Amino acid sequence: MSRYTRNKWRLKLQKIIYEADTPAGKLFDVVLLITILASVILVMLESVHSIDRKFHSFLNISEWVITILFSIEYILRIVTVKKPLKYVLSFYGIIDLLSTIPKYISLIVGGVHALAALRALRLLRVFRILKLARYLGASNNLMSAIKASRAKISVFLFAVIIISIILGTIMYLVEGEEHGFTDIPRSVYWCIVTLTTVGFGDIAPQTPLGQLIASLVMILGYGIIAVPTGIVSAEYTAQAKKEKPLSNPQICSKCLAENHNNKAQYCYNCGERIHS
Amino acid sequence: MSRYTRNKWRLKLQKIIYEADTPAGKLFDVVLLITILASVILVMLESVHSIDRKFHSFLNISEWVITILFSIEYILRIVTVKKPLKYVLSFYGIIDLLSTIPKYISLIVGGVHALAALRALRLLRVFRILKLARYLGASNNLMSAIKASRAKISVFLFAVIIISIILGTIMYLVEGEEHGFTDIPRSVYWCIVTLTTVGFGDIAPQTPLGQLIASLVMILGYGIIAVPTGIVSAEYTAQAKKEKPLSNPQICSKCLAENHNNKAQYCYNCGERIHS
Amino acid sequence: MSRYTRNKWRLKLQKIIYEADTPAGKLFDVVLLITILASVILVMLESVHSIDRKFHSFLNISEWVITILFSIEYILRIVTVKKPLKYVLSFYGIIDLLSTIPKYISLIVGGVHALAALRALRLLRVFRILKLARYLGASNNLMSAIKASRAKISVFLFAVIIISIILGTIMYLVEGEEHGFTDIPRSVYWCIVTLTTVGFGDIAPQTPLGQLIASLVMILGYGIIAVPTGIVSAEYTAQAKKEKPLSNPQICSKCLAENHNNKAQYCYNCGERIHS
Amino acid sequence: MSRYTRNKWRLKLQKIIYEADTPAGKLFDVVLLITILASVILVMLESVHSIDRKFHSFLNISEWVITILFSIEYILRIVTVKKPLKYVLSFYGIIDLLSTIPKYISLIVGGVHALAALRALRLLRVFRILKLARYLGASNNLMSAIKASRAKISVFLFAVIIISIILGTIMYLVEGEEHGFTDIPRSVYWCIVTLTTVGFGDIAPQTPLGQLIASLVMILGYGIIAVPTGIVSAEYTAQAKKEKPLSNPQICSKCLAENHNNKAQYCYNCGERIHS
Repeated sequence: MSRYTRNKWRLKLQKIIYEADTPAGKLFDVVLLITILASVILVMLESVHSIDRKFHSFLNISEWVITILFSIEYILRIVTVKKPLKYVLSFYGIIDLLSTIPKYISLIVGGVHALAALRALRLLRVFRILKLARYLGASNNLMSAIKASRAKISVFLFAVIIISIILGTIMYLVEGEEHGFTDIPRSVYWCIVTLTTVGFGDIAPQTPLGQLIASLVMILGYGIIAVPTGIVSAEYTAQAKKEKPLSNPQICSKCLAENHNNKAQYCYNCGERIHS
Repeated sequence: MSRYTRNKWRLKLQKIIYEADTPAGKLFDVVLLITILASVILVMLESVHSIDRKFHSFLNISEWVITILFSIEYILRIVTVKKPLKYVLSFYGIIDLLSTIPKYISLIVGGVHALAALRALRLLRVFRILKLARYLGASNNLMSAIKASRAKISVFLFAVIIISIILGTIMYLVEGEEHGFTDIPRSVYWCIVTLTTVGFGDIAPQTPLGQLIASLVMILGYGIIAVPTGIVSAEYTAQAKKEKPLSNPQICSKCLAENHNNKAQYCYNCGERIHS
Repeated sequence: MSRYTRNKWRLKLQKIIYEADTPAGKLFDVVLLITILASVILVMLESVHSIDRKFHSFLNISEWVITILFSIEYILRIVTVKKPLKYVLSFYGIIDLLSTIPKYISLIVGGVHALAALRALRLLRVFRILKLARYLGASNNLMSAIKASRAKISVFLFAVIIISIILGTIMYLVEGEEHGFTDIPRSVYWCIVTLTTVGFGDIAPQTPLGQLIASLVMILGYGIIAVPTGIVSAEYTAQAKKEKPLSNPQICSKCLAENHNNKAQYCYNCGERIHS
Repeated sequence: MSRYTRNKWRLKLQKIIYEADTPAGKLFDVVLLITILASVILVMLESVHSIDRKFHSFLNISEWVITILFSIEYILRIVTVKKPLKYVLSFYGIIDLLSTIPKYISLIVGGVHALAALRALRLLRVFRILKLARYLGASNNLMSAIKASRAKISVFLFAVIIISIILGTIMYLVEGEEHGFTDIPRSVYWCIVTLTTVGFGDIAPQTPLGQLIASLVMILGYGIIAVPTGIVSAEYTAQAKKEKPLSNPQICSKCLAENHNNKAQYCYNCGERIHS
């Protein structure tokens, strides 16, 4: 095989693997998407004892098939890409390796529980295929709204954490260890559970004073939730408005009327022709 | 009975059953609405053991009365409609059948529990009578706001599910089986419970690290809720705004252009005078 | 005492009781407010066994003092008002009677538990004194925003209830009685608990399928909360905007510039005097 | 040391401690920030029994080091500031004292539990260093939005508390003591837990009627949350809008009027030309 032919092959494969414009590329993406979803479902099912006991060998073989498929894909990606090292060290390169390797390690070490679950990281690969950006494109406003309000939301979260630490310490003093508030970190954890209105109930205040403080925490949390919502929705409205000024900047040269329709050719007020 | 008389009868019944303009049609709708509500309450009461024991025969007879009424209605609908097959295979046709048939089957098979509850589907029939569209008409803005933000909300929900699967797997590794996180699907379920700030508390993290991650999940969920709210409220504001410049019902008599400005006196498309 | 003097007295008392413009009227309002709050706290403390045991006679005497004060107030209100019957049958008239009478009845019947708690209704009287309208005046926008979105919120709540009944019935079929879903009303209750993201955890799904449906319910609830929030916030924005057009409707007679400052006396664009 | 040299030293120290413009001042701030965070983590870890047992002497020594560092800082602050008494009695002065003194008292009294936790107040000191205002500067809109909606949110919270007391009393009557609603304060606490959608589940209604009322409370809470969110988001949008027309920093050179329109060329107050 001449070097030229090899390069042509590499280019062809690269197009299939990294792009989605050709039919082959699309097919590759769809097959990969299905394989990833199947592999994630496999990992989840494997962790269920009753299912694992019944279908152990089936799950094991499927897992091997998927691992080998992913290994081939990983090697092909390295071979076809121009700068292999850059890919290997990239975010998706590491994810690809981490989601493939556990099964091989299990061969050597045998039944490493934690490593097996690492395979759930495969789900992150879904983002690559879905090329979410394309779908998110429609919600660009949303993205820039979140970006624009990032600083404010950070300050907000920082305040939530400080409130939680102070109120958690107070609850630790008020309720004490006999009511489940065994130490300050646990009390802070309870405070976050309550402030975010999750409310597990595994720890709950028992003394009247503790319940009074808890009530204040809850009402505070109920009120605080308005802040990030208000920020995002206001920023989002602002983003949406920024886009609009393009509607029709024309002003009638005769009567100075504004706010013409987007497709307007004549002034709605005096009938004068509008030059766009 | 001549064919003509039969047709006249059919037309009359059709008007009563399918329309609500005539007094008879309105009466039919009100009676049907009460029957449906009564039947749903019956199904609910029947499932309560203490009530079922006391009033078994009363509930049974009432159920039969309602089933026969619904059967008559179902037959009348088939007879009077122009395309019976289309009705039978339509969404409401299937609902009507499914909500009538269980009682008859119980005669043959006897006490089929699951089938009985199927009758709760009758509630879906309420929507037909209420002709919700009429009430929703006022909230058209709301509907189009939800529609406009559908794509973004899908992306959002998709992200929520992926976050739940990844964080659920991490929690499974961190907390392990002895603390209730028996398998990955269950951990993912816990993660959704926490992220949506529901927080049942049937499963709750016990280890400090687990509680730390849980805190992050909760704060994340607390922040994430701002996103759909922001989207809907911004879209809704946008919809409300769009409506105003479109509120001119005039259509140009010359070029048939629509969507004239509210104060428009001349067509923006051809310059023709608009008579309001 | 002549009839004239009596009338003068009645008028004076009426001013003190029903109005808050005179110093005496203000004093009356403050004293009444404190009495009401004290009486509500008394009712709450009385229900706590440990406190009731210790301070029974003190609580009893205080309750009698307050009851007699309220009785005097009730009689004075009837005597001074122009149309006594109208007052007695009004909302606040009934509340006033219901919050005074239980203590007297307890004399005859003795220890009627439920009647005692009726006194908590006294809290409703607070609204009269605070003349909340005055404070709410500032949030008129809010009130009209809620009013404007009432119809939409009703449709929304109606949909929430129907969803709860249908999903509750499905959960009853899926989870069954052994997992706490003993009957349909209880399942519907669970569904409302979950959909509103409250999540008590007294009932929780145990089967994988039940947990899957529960996840859908939770995500649905998480998304649905965006709807009323979006409605209120959009309506509120709309209300706030309606108010604004009053800012400055002037248009410069020379250059037709708009959006003049509220206090503007000269056009910001050409310096021409603006006639307001 | 002459008085002059002492004054120069004092000024230098003052600049380092109270300002952050010089490199030394910045270094001081960073060291203080790290010390505060370390001290708070120490307090939290100390409360965990298993950690305290293992690392008791290490934690004790670290705590002493930090206490001495804070003592020095406290003395330096008093020495360098112009009005020492004003500092001592200021909010941060009291916080500084309260967060330093517990360790010294523990020497005399020995193991005073509650005092130890007082040290968590140190966290409040973080706000001083971070000079949060600087970060919050970006979110000035947010601050003024919250301020503007303060009155409305107070009315809202007041309404939430009254609703909770009334519904809590009703639940106390309906559910009674055998189902956990032992007294009215506890029922009110439950009502707040439910209304804010926290839902611990430590107390939960058992009777059908109680569950029905609970459902109403939950749906009410689910709807009510829309109100503060709507307020904040609308006010925030309004604040963002207000800012724009005010963005012209020009002040009329003749009449000193401010808040000129963005495109203003003439003073709206006196007609004088504005030079931008």
